[in-house]
Amino acid sequence: MTTTIDSIRKMDRQDPLSAYRDRFHLPKDVTYLDGNSLGALPTTTAARIQDVVTREWGEDLIRSWNTNDWINAPRRLGDKIARLIGADAGEVISADSTSINVFKALSAATQLNSERSVILSETGNFPTDAYMMEGLAAMSGGRLKAELVERDAVLDSLDDRVAVLLLTHTHYKTGALWDMKTVTAAAQDKGVLVIWDLSHSAGALPVELNACNADFAVGCGYKYLNGGPGAPAFLFAAKRHHTVFPALSGWLGHKAPFAFSDHYEAGDGIDRFQCGTPGILGMAALECGLDLMLEADMADIRSKSMALGDLFIKLVDENLSGFRIVSPRLSEKRGSQVSIAHTDGYAIMQALIERGVIGDFRAPDILRFGFTPLYTRYEDVWRAVSEISDIMQSGAWQDARFAVRSAVT
Amino acid sequence: MTTTIDSIRKMDRQDPLSAYRDRFHLPKDVTYLDGNSLGALPTTTAARIQDVVTREWGEDLIRSWNTNDWINAPRRLGDKIARLIGADAGEVISADSTSINVFKALSAATQLNSERSVILSETGNFPTDAYMMEGLAAMSGGRLKAELVERDAVLDSLDDRVAVLLLTHTHYKTGALWDMKTVTAAAQDKGVLVIWDLSHSAGALPVELNACNADFAVGCGYKYLNGGPGAPAFLFAAKRHHTVFPALSGWLGHKAPFAFSDHYEAGDGIDRFQCGTPGILGMAALECGLDLMLEADMADIRSKSMALGDLFIKLVDENLSGFRIVSPRLSEKRGSQVSIAHTDGYAIMQALIERGVIGDFRAPDILRFGFTPLYTRYEDVWRAVSEISDIMQSGAWQDARFAVRSAVT
Repeated sequence: MTTTIDSIRKMDRQDPLSAYRDRFHLPKDVTYLDGNSLGALPTTTAARIQDVVTREWGEDLIRSWNTNDWINAPRRLGDKIARLIGADAGEVISADSTSINVFKALSAATQLNSERSVILSETGNFPTDAYMMEGLAAMSGGRLKAELVERDAVLDSLDDRVAVLLLTHTHYKTGALWDMKTVTAAAQDKGVLVIWDLSHSAGALPVELNACNADFAVGCGYKYLNGGPGAPAFLFAAKRHHTVFPALSGWLGHKAPFAFSDHYEAGDGIDRFQCGTPGILGMAALECGLDLMLEADMADIRSKSMALGDLFIKLVDENLSGFRIVSPRLSEKRGSQVSIAHTDGYAIMQALIERGVIGDFRAPDILRFGFTPLYTRYEDVWRAVSEISDIMQSGAWQDARFAVRSAVT
Repeated sequence: MTTTIDSIRKMDRQDPLSAYRDRFHLPKDVTYLDGNSLGALPTTTAARIQDVVTREWGEDLIRSWNTNDWINAPRRLGDKIARLIGADAGEVISADSTSINVFKALSAATQLNSERSVILSETGNFPTDAYMMEGLAAMSGGRLKAELVERDAVLDSLDDRVAVLLLTHTHYKTGALWDMKTVTAAAQDKGVLVIWDLSHSAGALPVELNACNADFAVGCGYKYLNGGPGAPAFLFAAKRHHTVFPALSGWLGHKAPFAFSDHYEAGDGIDRFQCGTPGILGMAALECGLDLMLEADMADIRSKSMALGDLFIKLVDENLSGFRIVSPRLSEKRGSQVSIAHTDGYAIMQALIERGVIGDFRAPDILRFGFTPLYTRYEDVWRAVSEISDIMQSGAWQDARFAVRSAVT
């Protein structure tokens, strides 16, 4: 390979974030480039979870809701997440799944913009966003309509029928970034509220929700926030929108949950977006990920993330043929991942995983590699491209190709 | 006390379930009668969770969705829960919170019964049920209306305006049972669909959903199922209702989630009631509770539960004055709890908890004691009443009474 491993190891030695890698448990002999699907395990998490299980649950039992502050976990974690996404304390709640939070945000936004009927997003967005739009529209008895347009047509489609625009800030498949500030302003200029899905942004790059005057946002706890499989998600609502009647009006969003009254009265501020009882084990694991993330400098994270992506693209250009770079080549237009396409992408990814380099495949032909600056080394990027190169040259992956094709078609 | 501790210890020695107590971690010097709020920790759970965290997440990472079968957890656990509530495999899913599942069931039932507009429940039901009804009605743009009537008036209110009746099988406060078979038949006879909230029933007594021809049910994982704080909840939908378009149409309920298509197509059968990514730590803890529960004989559980409640009432009658028995005196009309009322209930419960007997207080005046036959001993019941008696005689609780009253008013 043209770029030498020595020059790459020098980049790792000079990396100001290099010490963070030891704060994660990473399996031996694995190069993990799938933190955008499931983040790695922080070294503090196992002991913390054990303490929650054996002491907080096992010993303190029901008293833990107060003595171990379980009851405030959604707000406490929300406030920590707020610091990562440019929101204020009291504007973010950690709760439920991303899908459920999309529904909450959509129903709030369509309530605020009740004269308009269209919920707009782009084709090829992460499916759950589009599906939750369809669900809400189906429930509305014809009042609301879910519409998807091509990415290039989104801004031109913002007319006076559109109540809310739902976009994923960093595209899950390509890593392409929307310009949050410009798009928010353009939408609001047309009277459209905006919901940002930050699933592939939170913890991966600086997000400035309030500086962009964002209305709502949602995001995922188990990707760059390293909160564990199926970790609680989060919801942001700008303070000015803490007026809505929440559609998912569960008891923990009530103003006085323990008064057990017959009628719902929305809780103060962001609390109204809580619904049922929070999953405390998931919350505890997510908090470990957040505490670790909050130690690091987000500017360092972003700058390393861009450099990792740039290196990956450079190495692909130098060493591979037959692959197309799907992600933006300009790092400022890209989240913390690079995707490349190949007709036989699925078989190649399987061969790569067998060699211990873990990325993932997204239909129909995309190999996706996520870079988590807190634990991804430049050398990991080098190893990934080196193994792909070797796989393509050896042709070993071709044996599986036809079988795989019929399996995934 | 008239009934002697010796006679009570004899009941424990003869208890066919007595060996199960050692399958739970219970804190020393605590008499825990609040398993109907948060079930105790099974002895298998801590090690299982540690394995999920360190090996499945830490070592296997994203591969665990397949290799450790995370992806099927909602169905696998659902099938286990089905065995406890008289449902068939493929009719129950473990997912989200009880509140969210109430919403799913309500929106499904009102869709199936779309000519009718009223969602009916009783006043004094567990609040989240009523609140979710209000939320759905608020979203419907006037099509749906949430109505609460007194418990005694429920059956007479089933007219041709009522689309769905939502009742909690075992009342959270009084422990009173609805007759599931009779009520379901009466409602269906009037063209009304029925949703049973089994939060205080599942794992506490035999439930026969299909024998009662139930339409939908929901329930809680962290009470008698011992799934841990905020454990995933569950949803039952009778097979004949696996036709609806789910309102919370998240990606994991899609027919082909990993095809990442732009449009929602409901998954087969019960799968359509999945929404977002399941919280795997919570699922793993719940599965430990379920596996333990499935070892025991539900008839034994019920018969001990009735005996524990009967003993409690007998001891209250013999030893306390100024308390009113709120729960049905007839054990067949009662779930696995007994509630007693006293004007100074809050202060008395605080004094009791200080002495290590943990029940809970429900406004305005109810002291609630839950009996979990797998770990509650007859002696525990004796100790609870004995301590209450001692507290009332010593008058020590009265110091706190006035302070407490102003705090909770």
